[in-house]
This record gives sequence, structure tokens and C-alpha cells, in this order.
Amino acid sequence: MSASSEPTGREQRILRIIETARAKPPRFKDERITMAHGAGGRASQSLIEGLLVPELGSPRLAELGDAGILPEPGLALTSDSFVVRPLRFPGGSIGELAVNGTVNDLAVSGARPLALTLSLVLEEGLSAEVLRAEMQAVARAAGQADVEIVAGDTKVVERGQADQMYVCTTGVGVLDPRGALSPAAIRPGDRILVSGSIADHGMAIMMARGEFELEAEIESDTRSLWPAADALLESAGAALRCMRDATRGGLASALNELARASGVAMLVREADVPVRPDVAAAAEILGIDPMYVANEGKLVAFVPEAEAAAALAALRAVPGCSEAAEIGRVEEQPAGMVLLETGFGGRRVMDLLAGDPLPRIC
Amino acid sequence: MSASSEPTGREQRILRIIETARAKPPRFKDERITMAHGAGGRASQSLIEGLLVPELGSPRLAELGDAGILPEPGLALTSDSFVVRPLRFPGGSIGELAVNGTVNDLAVSGARPLALTLSLVLEEGLSAEVLRAEMQAVARAAGQADVEIVAGDTKVVERGQADQMYVCTTGVGVLDPRGALSPAAIRPGDRILVSGSIADHGMAIMMARGEFELEAEIESDTRSLWPAADALLESAGAALRCMRDATRGGLASALNELARASGVAMLVREADVPVRPDVAAAAEILGIDPMYVANEGKLVAFVPEAEAAAALAALRAVPGCSEAAEIGRVEEQPAGMVLLETGFGGRRVMDLLAGDPLPRIC
Repeated sequence: MSASSEPTGREQRILRIIETARAKPPRFKDERITMAHGAGGRASQSLIEGLLVPELGSPRLAELGDAGILPEPGLALTSDSFVVRPLRFPGGSIGELAVNGTVNDLAVSGARPLALTLSLVLEEGLSAEVLRAEMQAVARAAGQADVEIVAGDTKVVERGQADQMYVCTTGVGVLDPRGALSPAAIRPGDRILVSGSIADHGMAIMMARGEFELEAEIESDTRSLWPAADALLESAGAALRCMRDATRGGLASALNELARASGVAMLVREADVPVRPDVAAAAEILGIDPMYVANEGKLVAFVPEAEAAAALAALRAVPGCSEAAEIGRVEEQPAGMVLLETGFGGRRVMDLLAGDPLPRIC
Repeated sequence: MSASSEPTGREQRILRIIETARAKPPRFKDERITMAHGAGGRASQSLIEGLLVPELGSPRLAELGDAGILPEPGLALTSDSFVVRPLRFPGGSIGELAVNGTVNDLAVSGARPLALTLSLVLEEGLSAEVLRAEMQAVARAAGQADVEIVAGDTKVVERGQADQMYVCTTGVGVLDPRGALSPAAIRPGDRILVSGSIADHGMAIMMARGEFELEAEIESDTRSLWPAADALLESAGAALRCMRDATRGGLASALNELARASGVAMLVREADVPVRPDVAAAAEILGIDPMYVANEGKLVAFVPEAEAAAALAALRAVPGCSEAAEIGRVEEQPAGMVLLETGFGGRRVMDLLAGDPLPRIC
């Protein structure tokens, strides 16, 4: 690392200001909900941590994990609504996304997915064939992820609402005894692994919307992450610190949430983050940073330096994870922040986005 | 019972035709989803049993219980989306409904409610104060029902969709060892209990919409049914056959679903079904049968004749259940059907509704 990568005095002052702001719990000061509140960035954070969690007053919710943990029966619970537009896109559809997204929140919480519930809000006038195709997609994805749909609900709302269909899936998983995962377990010196190339899902959705005059064969990466989580638990066991799936807001948002929750800094080497050439090219043309683009089948994992090589090898042996990589390490300072080490040896803050890069990608 | 209450030859032929039709699994033949598919009547049944359950191919889902049962860890899982209009109404709001509705599906499955997840779909432009009030309602209802919200999710959709907000709650409960409930356990001779007056919720919603020039002080009955379920489990224990909450489609739909699932007939004495005078008056003016109007805090229970008096007394001792009543009994024939014994000693079929009496009441 060259000397130029150390922050200058001015940069250090800026970092301290950001760090101080970050230590305060976010407040929710908006009068109305905007699309940005659903985008996974800073506005979402202020809604969740400034309004929803305080009003609901639940200590387990305040842990802000991917799933709620019930230590007594040893279960993890997680819930997600899917409002993706369009319903079908290269590599997947809302049905697969709804299964895999919920399965993955369990997997990165160190819980073996056991069962799902499926709650549908259907728009009056929805084609029965579209609905049938999505139920087949749900069944296929559930079969691949080895989870059973055990309960369901259906509501119908008037034409013009619900954009064909919204799907809410909730998953219950059994906590795997091999792991003891928590953002609080992350330590300076830990290595950061990612399970494959990033930004595929979000770019696939952008292409599928046809809003850009760009043709690229980009497919969503939607898949169950339990095999990847299982491999990491088997390889690193109790040394595995924490996992998270990098969905809404992309890799940058997942790392920022964890840096804040664990009170450490993260240093990511930009050149080591796998991005497929067609995704990188499309992102560059559109002026979008792939670090902030959603994934639906990628996790980040934190392991001690001593376990990193074995964990990475275990991860790469999982089907679909051959591009897994070590992308950086955990440091002490600046606490709560993510820094990106660029190709030129410089560093910049990789912060949460304030706005809404891409609504309704999941 | 007078001789006139026995079906005539013509009535018997009609009953046999209905019975034969009912024995076939419903097929889904519509090309598009209509509001009726969400109303809890025959159209909903054809969607669920003719499309959703077959395509999802899950044996547990095919049991069509209020909750999915996971025998291994001894858990019940249930999920519901709430799309009620308006959000607030006399006696409650969408937040309370979302907690109590899901708690009640667990309670009638014989499972002590343990934890909930909360997934929100918010409309762009939603007032933060409206959202805050609903989160307070959720927290209050969860406190009263003694369940914790352990995980959540938030999505935002464009203005004009989601009618302010939709709420999806999923509940996990621990199967209570005192009971072994199943529609299949219902036997001819069993008595049918209801935990209080019917049709309050649906009529409160109708009044709150202000579509009728009618003024009546009718409040929703939204509440947790766990205390009622607990009292019945304590009183009747393993003799308690089955419970169900009479929500969408009202008492008539709940009884029809159970009659079909258990292959027995049910005979309900109209005069013994508790309906509050203001609800009965409003229903009469509007030409609506209270039997088909939704409840959000009422259950039906099936107990052997020998346990019925004690179970009813136990139920009446529960706060909010003082109007509980024995409303009828189970018979062998006509299998799968519900008959109503009217005040004049006649009988008529109380079938599932084909159409949509009242959309979006929960």
C-alpha cells in the first residue's frame, strides 16, 4: 500500500464528522414516505431505525439482523415482501425471488431453512396464467432449496393496485449448531469474503425494464445461499463471525450496515471485487456503481485471517460460487465506516446511498 | 324437531346433487382474477384448491388449516396479508387486525402464539403520522397478545398502488400439548360452540366506509383469541376436536370449510347464533346475512356432547366471550354440508357464497 492511500488531514477531519454523525441513532423527520425509503439506503435506514423499530419497541427487532432469532426453540424467523417490476426477468421471476430471498435471510443468519409461508396480494384482472407460472416458479425454487410451503394467504385488491401481484414470504429456520454468528463477533484483522460476482440481479432488472437503449445478456443471480452458508459453517465452524446477503443497496449497503452494527471499519479492495464484464460494461455506460446494485444470490462473510484461505476454498467448491473472492479486511478505524481502496492506491469512503438508485428490484 | 324440518323428497334430490358436486375437487377455470377470488367464498375456494395448492404441491398446504403444522419442532406457522379499507375503523385499525388476525390463526390451531414478523408495503406519499399510528397499534396489540415482533421488512411502491399500506404478518406458535386438533377429529354428535356475537367486524367496516346512509355505533371485535383457545384447551383437553376463527366469509364460510374437510354435516340453530341488536338491525336494512359477515375475534369450536356444557362455561368466563353460545351439532348426513334450522322449524342449506359480499375487510 503506497503512502498516498493514507487519509490526508482534511480527509481525516471529514471522516471524523461522518463518524460522529453515524454514532447517533438516525431520526425520521420526513412527513411522507418516498420511494427512497424503500431503496435500502440512508432513507430506509432512517425509516427503520428512526420510526419502525422505536415504535414497535421490540428488542429482537432492534438487533436489525437478517432474521429474528428465537433462542429458546433455536429458531430464526424472517419475512420479506416482493414487489419487483417486471414480474419476470432474465434468470428468474418474482416467484423464485420470493423463495430464495427469504431462504437466504435464514441462511446468512446461520439457520437451515425449514419451511416457508406464502402470502399473495393479487390485482383484480391478473391473468390466471401469470399467476400459475409464478406458483410453478415458487414450487420449483422451494424444491431446489429443500423447503416446504406450509401456509398461505390470498387477498385481491382493485385494478390499478398491487401491479399484478405482490408476494410476501416468511421463513422459519433451525439455528445451525456449528455457528454462532453476530455482527458483534466481527474483529479487526478479519477477512471479508464474497460468494461471487456482484450486481447481476439489479442490472438484469434494469435491462428487463427496457428503459435504456442497451442490449446485454445479463441474468439475475437468484438462488438459494444455504449451500454456500453450509460450506462456510462446515469449514470455519464457530470461527465464522457473520454472514449477510447483499441484496437491496448492494454490497456497499450490506457492508455499511455491518460496519455500523459491529463498530469496526472495513477496507475493500475494489480490484478484488468480482464483477462480470458485461455487468461492468453496462454499469459504466449507465453511470451506476455496481457496488450499490442489488444481488439476490450473493453473501458476504467474515472470517479470521487464519481461516480465510480454507473458507474461500470451501466456498468456491459450492456450485454457483466459483467466482468467490476475498475482497478486503476489517480494521479498527474509522469505526462504522467502509473504505474502498481504488486501483490507483487511493482510498475513498463507500457510504450508504442517500437516494433511490433503483426502486422495486425485489 | 317437527316433521316439517325433515327434507322433502325434492330437497333430498337437490342435496344429493350438491353433495356430489362438492365431493369433486374444485377446478379453477377463470382466465383472470376477480375481487370475488379474495372474498372467502366459492371463488376463493376454487382459486386456492384449484390452482394455488395443486401448483405449489405441498402436502401440508393441502391440509388447508389455519396454520401450517411442523410436527418435528412442534410448531405452527401462519401468514396473512391485510389490505383493509379504511385503515382505521371503530374498534380498531389495520395494525391491530394484522397482529390479532395472525395470532388467532395460531390460537385456533392449538398453538400458543410466540413471535410475529411484520412486512410492510407502503405507498409513496403515505403520511408518516399514519404509519406511526399503525406501528403503535401493532405494538399495543402485540403487547396485549403477549407476542414479540422479531423480524420485519419494508417496501415502498409508487403512488396509486397499495392504498396507503398493506401489512403482512406471519406468526409462529408452539403446539399446545393439551390439544390434538384436526377437522378430521369432528364426529357426528359433537356440539358447535361460538365464542360470542357474530358479524361485528364486517358491519363496522361497512359503516366506516360511509357508503350507506345509516348511522350505527358498531365496533370491530378484533382481539386475540388465545385466551378463548386456552380456556377450551384447559376445559376439554384432548376431547376438543377442532377450532376455527370465523373471519372472511363469516361463520357460514368457516363451518362450510370444516364440514367439507371433515366429511360431516352441521346443523346450526339460527335462533341460537348470537347477533347484537344493532348489527342485526343494520344487516336487515342492508339486506345482508350476518352469517356471511366477517369477524376478527370470534372462533367456532367442536366438542363432544359430554364436554359441551363445561367447555361453554369455560369460554364464557373469558373476558370478551360472555356471549359465547352453543349453536348447533354435527350430524352424519348430508356429508360436507351446513344446514340452518330456522326459527320456523324449517331447514335450509347455508352454502358458501359464490360472489363477493364485501371486499377488503381484512
